[in-house]
Amino acid sequence: TVGVDFPVCVVLPAGGSGERTGLQTPKQFCLLLGRPLISYTIRSFERVSWIHSIVVVVAKENMDLMTDIVGRFQHTKVRLVAGGSTRHRSICNGVMALAEEDEEQERENKVVIIHDAVRPFVEEEFLYHITVAAREHGASGAIRPLVSTVIATTSEGFLDHSLERAKYRASEMPQAFKFNIVHKAYQRCTEADFAFGTECLHLVLQYCATNAKLIEGPPTLWKVTYKRDLAAAESVVKDKLSRSACVITGACSRARMLADSLHEAFCSLEMELDIIPDVIGDNGGYLHKAWNFIQFFMNVSDLAQLETTFAAIEAARQTLLHPVVVIVVHLSNADRRAVEPAAFAELASTAKLRNILLYGVHVQQSKDAERWARSVAKVAELTSALIRERSEALVGQLLQA
Amino acid sequence: TVGVDFPVCVVLPAGGSGERTGLQTPKQFCLLLGRPLISYTIRSFERVSWIHSIVVVVAKENMDLMTDIVGRFQHTKVRLVAGGSTRHRSICNGVMALAEEDEEQERENKVVIIHDAVRPFVEEEFLYHITVAAREHGASGAIRPLVSTVIATTSEGFLDHSLERAKYRASEMPQAFKFNIVHKAYQRCTEADFAFGTECLHLVLQYCATNAKLIEGPPTLWKVTYKRDLAAAESVVKDKLSRSACVITGACSRARMLADSLHEAFCSLEMELDIIPDVIGDNGGYLHKAWNFIQFFMNVSDLAQLETTFAAIEAARQTLLHPVVVIVVHLSNADRRAVEPAAFAELASTAKLRNILLYGVHVQQSKDAERWARSVAKVAELTSALIRERSEALVGQLLQA
Ligand SMILES: [Mg+2]
Ligand SMILES: [Mg+2]
Repeated sequence: TVGVDFPVCVVLPAGGSGERTGLQTPKQFCLLLGRPLISYTIRSFERVSWIHSIVVVVAKENMDLMTDIVGRFQHTKVRLVAGGSTRHRSICNGVMALAEEDEEQERENKVVIIHDAVRPFVEEEFLYHITVAAREHGASGAIRPLVSTVIATTSEGFLDHSLERAKYRASEMPQAFKFNIVHKAYQRCTEADFAFGTECLHLVLQYCATNAKLIEGPPTLWKVTYKRDLAAAESVVKDKLSRSACVITGACSRARMLADSLHEAFCSLEMELDIIPDVIGDNGGYLHKAWNFIQFFMNVSDLAQLETTFAAIEAARQTLLHPVVVIVVHLSNADRRAVEPAAFAELASTAKLRNILLYGVHVQQSKDAERWARSVAKVAELTSALIRERSEALVGQLLQA
Repeated sequence: TVGVDFPVCVVLPAGGSGERTGLQTPKQFCLLLGRPLISYTIRSFERVSWIHSIVVVVAKENMDLMTDIVGRFQHTKVRLVAGGSTRHRSICNGVMALAEEDEEQERENKVVIIHDAVRPFVEEEFLYHITVAAREHGASGAIRPLVSTVIATTSEGFLDHSLERAKYRASEMPQAFKFNIVHKAYQRCTEADFAFGTECLHLVLQYCATNAKLIEGPPTLWKVTYKRDLAAAESVVKDKLSRSACVITGACSRARMLADSLHEAFCSLEMELDIIPDVIGDNGGYLHKAWNFIQFFMNVSDLAQLETTFAAIEAARQTLLHPVVVIVVHLSNADRRAVEPAAFAELASTAKLRNILLYGVHVQQSKDAERWARSVAKVAELTSALIRERSEALVGQLLQA
């Protein structure tokens, strides 16, 4: 993804009412792990270095909510514009807002990507493809194979004929346009287009004689439509967040050995494990890429060191986008003092306010090899499940390996 | 759903390879809470009293697996038939197998429903509608509104034109046919139809001049296609299983009071709570409808009574279809003996073999009203989360309310 030497911006209509989810909240504002869906979509564009500006078009009644979201999740490339009464009017408002920004010279080169707020998982590589195609052909759009046969019905509700599936495609988002082309199309289009149209590709064909280049997109472009899609989207996010974890062993050699054993167990779960002694110096780098930490300790008094870990995680700004999981594994001897449940729960509820999900796992040291192997397997099972589930209800619990 | 006074049977092609899920296992065999997807689909038909026979058409290489599934989950209306090389050949094999069953007289009246193995959530009411429509019109099928604009592409991959969305529908499953019509269509159709056709409705139109009646189906008819759809389907199943729970209080009045407080807390989570003193006599009825039990006890020695609950749940055959959650809530005084973690974990791992997920919650009695209210809220939070999540990793853990 190199060589985007022209200006690229985004229009993101976010005006939908979300009636199909069966939920009260419009779906672009539904929370996934505590963050609204639209913030994930914005982030998908914001992290692309060659995209400089994102116009989010939002219904007037949601303007305050959207302003809060932009502030809270520190989106930096976003500008908010008030939406219209239909999808096309909203997109048009976004395009017109972009028109005011630039000199005519600049507009000549500009490409605008139009996307849906409820397709959060669009990737840089695909954005690159449609952007370059739009620059070359004037317009481009994502397509997908049809999943169902499309049929025409008679006025009485009977089958008239079915379409040959191979000849047709589903038109999806994102789409991209040379700015001047989409701008012209919206200047020329009629009230009927604004009221009933759904397809920008159709407008540029009709009013600018531009046949869009169609590019097959990945299935991850799917649109979050129903309540079950929110569960699917949450599972996609959880998958991404639970691919790896960082183990902080401390100086103890027993902890280091346990970490090595865990490494093997996590491999078989297809999870990566990075093992570091602490989070200072060069090891600080791990804080910027890990969403999960497993910290070992031997003595209850060492729990005080957790504040160092929390502060380092916060400083790395990981907690801004996702809850970060911290699991403390207490490697205890029979004669050592146990962690006091109420104190641990209190510590966890404070961490929770910092978007850190703290859990505890207690494992009894054992010289019996078989018993120890079972304990290690249980530590792996518990920690990987806690990382995968990210349960809020279980925060502050002390589990037994 | 009354008045089905003619024979109705089902053909369920289950031959797909599931390549689109990105998983090794064909998606009809993927597990949802320990049970293969296809078993859920079979169950959706088996529980309909007026459906008497279900022909599952399965690829030869999966015949043994499917036989195991039918035995293990005790499906009673199922007959297995070997599939063909394409979807149409498989459906045809199923239809031909049904032709052998009956006298010509019987066939005259018979309606056959064709469905997909990977659409597990079809409901009796909709099956009734398409069955009655097929009986009246010869054929019927589920349709859904198009979710994307459908476009025709040029041979060079550019937009040719887009279809007017309102005129077309997506053809979905189930479909239903008078037996003689679909039988005749398969006898007349060509090798090309077998190889490339996808749509039974099209075959009966072409070979029997039967225009199917089209009926808009609910969104729950959606097809499990991608890995994310498995997460969505699991969330649908978990939703259904976590709508209610049954609290077994025992004779203690304190437990009864806690149950009443829980009732309120669960109401606000939109969960129903049935409260019963025990599982004997008339109360045994709850065992046949509950998937979740919360059992209170005061003394560690009372844990032995759990076996009564487990045996009653097993006798009600609830564990055959879904893992049943049992949460023991220990209402303790400071001076009472605590539950021993290793013994509880052992008890839970035995229960797990019976498809019972056992968890523990410890709550300290308190005369401080504010503190007690906090504890009750925490018990509600923990038990509802355990019921909702159904985590295997957390089985046998003792949590702190
Ligand atoms: Mg569109
Ligand atoms: Mg079909």
